Amino acid sequence: MSASVNRQILLVEKPTGKLSVDHFKMSEAAMPVAKDGEALLKVHYISLDAANRAWMHGATYRSAVEANTVMAGGGIAEVIASNSPDLKAGDIVFGDTGWQQYAAVPARHLNKLPRMEPMTHLLSVYGIAGLTAYFGLLQVGQPKQGETVVVSAAAGSVGSIVGQIAKIKGCRVVGIAGGKDKCDWLVSELGFDAAVDYKDGATFKALKAAAPKGIDVYFDNVGGDILEACIAQMNLRGRIACCGAISQYDGVPSATGPRGVPGLIVVKRLRMEGFIVMDYMDQRDAALKDLQGWVSSGQLKVQEDVIDGLDNTPRALIGLLAGENRGKRMIRL
Amino acid sequence: MSASVNRQILLVEKPTGKLSVDHFKMSEAAMPVAKDGEALLKVHYISLDAANRAWMHGATYRSAVEANTVMAGGGIAEVIASNSPDLKAGDIVFGDTGWQQYAAVPARHLNKLPRMEPMTHLLSVYGIAGLTAYFGLLQVGQPKQGETVVVSAAAGSVGSIVGQIAKIKGCRVVGIAGGKDKCDWLVSELGFDAAVDYKDGATFKALKAAAPKGIDVYFDNVGGDILEACIAQMNLRGRIACCGAISQYDGVPSATGPRGVPGLIVVKRLRMEGFIVMDYMDQRDAALKDLQGWVSSGQLKVQEDVIDGLDNTPRALIGLLAGENRGKRMIRL
Repeated sequence: MSASVNRQILLVEKPTGKLSVDHFKMSEAAMPVAKDGEALLKVHYISLDAANRAWMHGATYRSAVEANTVMAGGGIAEVIASNSPDLKAGDIVFGDTGWQQYAAVPARHLNKLPRMEPMTHLLSVYGIAGLTAYFGLLQVGQPKQGETVVVSAAAGSVGSIVGQIAKIKGCRVVGIAGGKDKCDWLVSELGFDAAVDYKDGATFKALKAAAPKGIDVYFDNVGGDILEACIAQMNLRGRIACCGAISQYDGVPSATGPRGVPGLIVVKRLRMEGFIVMDYMDQRDAALKDLQGWVSSGQLKVQEDVIDGLDNTPRALIGLLAGENRGKRMIRL
Repeated sequence: MSASVNRQILLVEKPTGKLSVDHFKMSEAAMPVAKDGEALLKVHYISLDAANRAWMHGATYRSAVEANTVMAGGGIAEVIASNSPDLKAGDIVFGDTGWQQYAAVPARHLNKLPRMEPMTHLLSVYGIAGLTAYFGLLQVGQPKQGETVVVSAAAGSVGSIVGQIAKIKGCRVVGIAGGKDKCDWLVSELGFDAAVDYKDGATFKALKAAAPKGIDVYFDNVGGDILEACIAQMNLRGRIACCGAISQYDGVPSATGPRGVPGLIVVKRLRMEGFIVMDYMDQRDAALKDLQGWVSSGQLKVQEDVIDGLDNTPRALIGLLAGENRGKRMIRL
């Protein structure tokens, strides 16, 4: 054993507003012991993610972090003792080690990883960040060659990889990031076609200039105003991959709504999709056959609300907007 | 010719707040004449749709309606004279006739329909309303037997059909409508399993009681607060078919945001989809192979932001939330 105490960082209070260092405190605990099925880990790297802050609001895709416990967080660690047949001393693993030097974690909650140099790659490009970028862009966003892909938090761990993969796939890539330095870096170092500095104001206009053909895929890491600006510039049948909502995490959640967008959309992997019936008109005959069958069998009842007289049309529309009608309202001339 | 004047209803002013009868006026015009390629129509039925109001805000899937013109609207009409080889007197058509007795419309903008009794079915169950319900529910919502389907504006032209089709498909169906009468009707006449009266307050709780296993498909006609309540009760991988946003149409658009949700989602047929990387872990090996290939070829640059020392973890997270980092931030212990 290389130490007799385990230094830890506790979350002492859940923030109601902005997170500050006062919400945490250093603490020391006895070295943990690996129980049956557990491995004792020495933590090498702790991953920092905007999601850490979201966990403080409540249950997401994991249970909420609680006050007066070791702050949760992913980490790369080395097994120093094992009480599980699946792991042995010297193995490198990823898991929720928490913010501490040592942790005893059930082996079934740990992913064994290959040793590699630099080890940090296991947390960045080959870790959650890289895989999030990969699957979110390619499987949810489904970019096609020549399309315009926009990514927010573009200089971050996920965004910087999203943009580069989109370039590899032959797309025009626009990154949204905070500050001229980051924006310059995206273009000159990472090969983005353009970058928009949201701290510069006029994000909507700058985005329009950077994506003159509109946006086909928006990879959203931030939610809020930037999501709003992007939605307004999406092309028909655009895809928005909802990955996170950083702008909403730190502070009092905004009073604007619908409040589940995009937070719950992410957590619940929801698909929210707009449609217009005209797009399906090539399948109209088959649909009508179904509908007619259901109407004649009595499974589908037809409710209509027929009002006589052209003069009544305005009043009838106003009544419909007020919820007056039952079934299809129409005017008979 | 059965008349020498054409009675019309003009939109005299675009409403900035609630729509009232004062925004319209009756007018008389000369009988229109069918020009080359046009048909002269006698309108039998004018369709009233919440979308009529949305058209007054600006361009949607059609251009905006303008002040001092005949109010736009779909209608079922009979051809009384034709200057097109595609239509002849006596044909029944659907098209944007506007709110008037007669209209001259290019034949290519008209859909020829079969004569049927009652003719009203061409505007309700076999018209836009029925087809919207059919495709929106089955193709966008993709309900499976045993799932819970919730539909808002459930007593309306589209909603009343959505709910019935969902029943035909073996789902538990909950309708949201305004008033006890409508709710009773949904259950007793249309066979819905439950109905929630949103005018009764406590919509969230009532919905929870009516859909105790959560919502798998939400067919949204209304947007706003009801969308918000439904999002919060969606099950994992739920589908929200965004059909309309009635709650947002009449009056000043709400200040809450993101403002494009669900309005632009509908108009642009956007897909907004949440995801969590863990769901894709069965494809991890293939992803890593791609990523490794791109890293070694130099197409993908890896940016990491490594900070030393456990004690710096809180400050590092706070800095990340403030946008300090570039690439993947982590703590080295």
